[in-house]
Amino acid sequence: MDVLWMLRVDELSHALANLPMFPYFDVAHYVVSVMALREQPGALEVSRVSPLACWFSSMLFCFGGAVLSGIMLAEPPIAPLTNSTGVLLASLIWYLVFYCPMDLVYSCTARLPLRLVLSGMKEVTRTWKVLGGVTQAHGKYKDSLLVMIAIGWAKGAGGGLISNFEQLVRGVWKPETNELLKMSYPTKITLIGAVLFTLQQTGYLPLQTHHLMLLYTVFTVVNKTRMMLTGSNISPFAGIESVVYKTLFSGPSPYAALTSEAHKARIDTDTATNMTSSSPAKTKESSGKRAAGKRTPAPPVNGKSESLKAKEKSENGETTNSKKTK
Amino acid sequence: MDVLWMLRVDELSHALANLPMFPYFDVAHYVVSVMALREQPGALEVSRVSPLACWFSSMLFCFGGAVLSGIMLAEPPIAPLTNSTGVLLASLIWYLVFYCPMDLVYSCTARLPLRLVLSGMKEVTRTWKVLGGVTQAHGKYKDSLLVMIAIGWAKGAGGGLISNFEQLVRGVWKPETNELLKMSYPTKITLIGAVLFTLQQTGYLPLQTHHLMLLYTVFTVVNKTRMMLTGSNISPFAGIESVVYKTLFSGPSPYAALTSEAHKARIDTDTATNMTSSSPAKTKESSGKRAAGKRTPAPPVNGKSESLKAKEKSENGETTNSKKTK
Amino acid sequence: MDVLWMLRVDELSHALANLPMFPYFDVAHYVVSVMALREQPGALEVSRVSPLACWFSSMLFCFGGAVLSGIMLAEPPIAPLTNSTGVLLASLIWYLVFYCPMDLVYSCTARLPLRLVLSGMKEVTRTWKVLGGVTQAHGKYKDSLLVMIAIGWAKGAGGGLISNFEQLVRGVWKPETNELLKMSYPTKITLIGAVLFTLQQTGYLPLQTHHLMLLYTVFTVVNKTRMMLTGSNISPFAGIESVVYKTLFSGPSPYAALTSEAHKARIDTDTATNMTSSSPAKTKESSGKRAAGKRTPAPPVNGKSESLKAKEKSENGETTNSKKTK
Repeated sequence: MDVLWMLRVDELSHALANLPMFPYFDVAHYVVSVMALREQPGALEVSRVSPLACWFSSMLFCFGGAVLSGIMLAEPPIAPLTNSTGVLLASLIWYLVFYCPMDLVYSCTARLPLRLVLSGMKEVTRTWKVLGGVTQAHGKYKDSLLVMIAIGWAKGAGGGLISNFEQLVRGVWKPETNELLKMSYPTKITLIGAVLFTLQQTGYLPLQTHHLMLLYTVFTVVNKTRMMLTGSNISPFAGIESVVYKTLFSGPSPYAALTSEAHKARIDTDTATNMTSSSPAKTKESSGKRAAGKRTPAPPVNGKSESLKAKEKSENGETTNSKKTK
Repeated sequence: MDVLWMLRVDELSHALANLPMFPYFDVAHYVVSVMALREQPGALEVSRVSPLACWFSSMLFCFGGAVLSGIMLAEPPIAPLTNSTGVLLASLIWYLVFYCPMDLVYSCTARLPLRLVLSGMKEVTRTWKVLGGVTQAHGKYKDSLLVMIAIGWAKGAGGGLISNFEQLVRGVWKPETNELLKMSYPTKITLIGAVLFTLQQTGYLPLQTHHLMLLYTVFTVVNKTRMMLTGSNISPFAGIESVVYKTLFSGPSPYAALTSEAHKARIDTDTATNMTSSSPAKTKESSGKRAAGKRTPAPPVNGKSESLKAKEKSENGETTNSKKTK
Repeated sequence: MDVLWMLRVDELSHALANLPMFPYFDVAHYVVSVMALREQPGALEVSRVSPLACWFSSMLFCFGGAVLSGIMLAEPPIAPLTNSTGVLLASLIWYLVFYCPMDLVYSCTARLPLRLVLSGMKEVTRTWKVLGGVTQAHGKYKDSLLVMIAIGWAKGAGGGLISNFEQLVRGVWKPETNELLKMSYPTKITLIGAVLFTLQQTGYLPLQTHHLMLLYTVFTVVNKTRMMLTGSNISPFAGIESVVYKTLFSGPSPYAALTSEAHKARIDTDTATNMTSSSPAKTKESSGKRAAGKRTPAPPVNGKSESLKAKEKSENGETTNSKKTK
């Protein structure tokens, strides 16, 4: 009976591993990606103002992973364009989502049931992308785990990782945010997947590829569906993250001391001379204020946005002052 | 008689196809490019403040196409530097245009008659660049029209397409404008050329290469001269563009609804959950307001600048608010 | 006696040339680089907010040269990750410098004596990097001095040259400053080194490699130590620079005329039509105001920051106006 169940799972995993992505899953990926672009603030304006920029952005959303991993491996970032079928399909979907009369397509796909299905299918494609990236890097750099993880991550979450430059195409520039400073859920899940598949490929994870594919796919799809149904943005790793963060990265100097410190330490790279004199004082101060830091243990994300805003404010302050002095 | 004329044209096209670009036409291209840089706002300051940055910018203006297509094809973007003669020539012209005593060179080349000739010759080089890019891509990616168009376009209009990063070298950063959002005339004409030469190379356009070269060159030169003499910035495709735009891209949602919509739809990529609930309302609203949109059919460009400024304003507004709340 | 001394120097240079960089000098390079990152304004906040972004920035500080030269030569920019030992070492140092309990590591390494030693050792690694880059380029592009200089420079000063994008990782964006607009001392010294080694490799400089290595290393180390001890930021080339600048680049138009001129000449690339009419007037004006320019011979750097600030101010002014008009 238990054996039977095991066999079923094995069959299922084999069936999944042999599942062709083209056309249905690819289409789902394109639809969800283009919808994600359309739901970016200001994207609709751009679609009216410059269809070409809008199309280019959509392609970056759909093929960002291939472009990014191409750049990282010094392969032509233009290669995705050679996949004519995919580009035509994505372009068709781009047109329908943005310019369909009566906005029929978007208003359909944006409804929960259909959206659930499409998002689920998109998550399935993620597994294939990550695995593809990891195996590709494995073929080029045999024993380098880091490269395999990086390429797998880039393939799977490229659209997010290059978002700064994708936004630039649309005339938007938000330097204060990027996926490394504040990872979104898909970026996180893709990173975890890249690590898992890398360990599996290098034999550190005693699992067969198709089994891991089944596990990872089920996890991502179920989790994505849960998040869409409950409407919650809480990632399932929040707990682990905060624990890891508290143990490893809650270093010496508290938030309070930071801005002041940052302004003291205006020293450019390599020529750090007068630094040396001020540093003992600084360390004293920081160790002194650690209690305060402990008292206000702001969670990373909020802390980040706060501190960064604070920094921006201070910087703006400076520039204005320097202008007034002129 | 008519046959004679045909023969003459054929001879002429052959003569043109065998015309060597080096040195005269290359020099004209460098002069016009460096002058275009010098006429950028703030360029003269940079030339005084940091000659190196100014030189690097000039090289990007002169060899931007080669650099961009190099990156797109994963070939060394530094390759143009191996063409020592070209670089030395361009550097000499850069120096004369920016630092010549009494500003003799610039004040000569900037006069209409000479400038007309130089611009005309630069347009001729465009044909060679576009054709070069298309054939290069044709050799690498046999059947991929899109890649051929992209590389031809990049080779011919690279300086414009990478302008954002060229400006960054000079300490200028204008994310709200790029050649994809608002194409300049040279970028447009180059794109058209890339499409034509791609179709010709792949045999969809029943023309011989040297005939198309003659046609395209004559068109670009004549048109450029017309624009410089009349001082009009109106591209000859304005009519076609607006027709295409009205038929294809005047989608459902009018400008009026956009900003409000953009602010409602603050959902980041991939995790688009509560979106689903609000989208039906949104589509109603948009279809409802279409009339208003019809009433004010702002032309793409103005519409763009307006809407983007509006967006910036609102965003600035937000940040300030969020700062005040802190 | 003199011969003896010569022999000693020769031995010394041979010994230096055979000095292994790994592990001690590499470690010193990583420590100084990560400390330089930590002393960037706002870096400590980022280290608390997003350890991943902080780690990535540190890697760019440590391996920026390899990444940049990789991009320039169309080799995988991810290659440095394949050097597992180096990456692990750098990551360990990154962790200790940023998150060590009681901030022990930083407070030690920041003290003058140790810092002097570390910085000196880092300067030694610079020689190896520059030479490595030059020889690598020499192997690929036999006779192209410019490429050899560029790659040697990129290898040796990559961290500084890509600082704009390294800052972007940390959510900081300062387009108005880059190493080309205002070169820092290490960038300058690296450029000089790249030129020297290029001339030596191509035989224009009648010196043996190990002799030049000794000379360059001694010069950089001594000079760096001097600058750290005296706390002066004055580069030893300030004199030569100003002379070269005054002779070559103090062109026709003075600072005073620049901003006004820049605002007149608002013409985008390639379509420079009505320019022609205004240019004679401009040249007259500029030649007229040269006296004023002579009267206030602002040094490049201040001049730059001033003029650029002025430009920013004016630009901000414009945008605000254009907003008011809306």
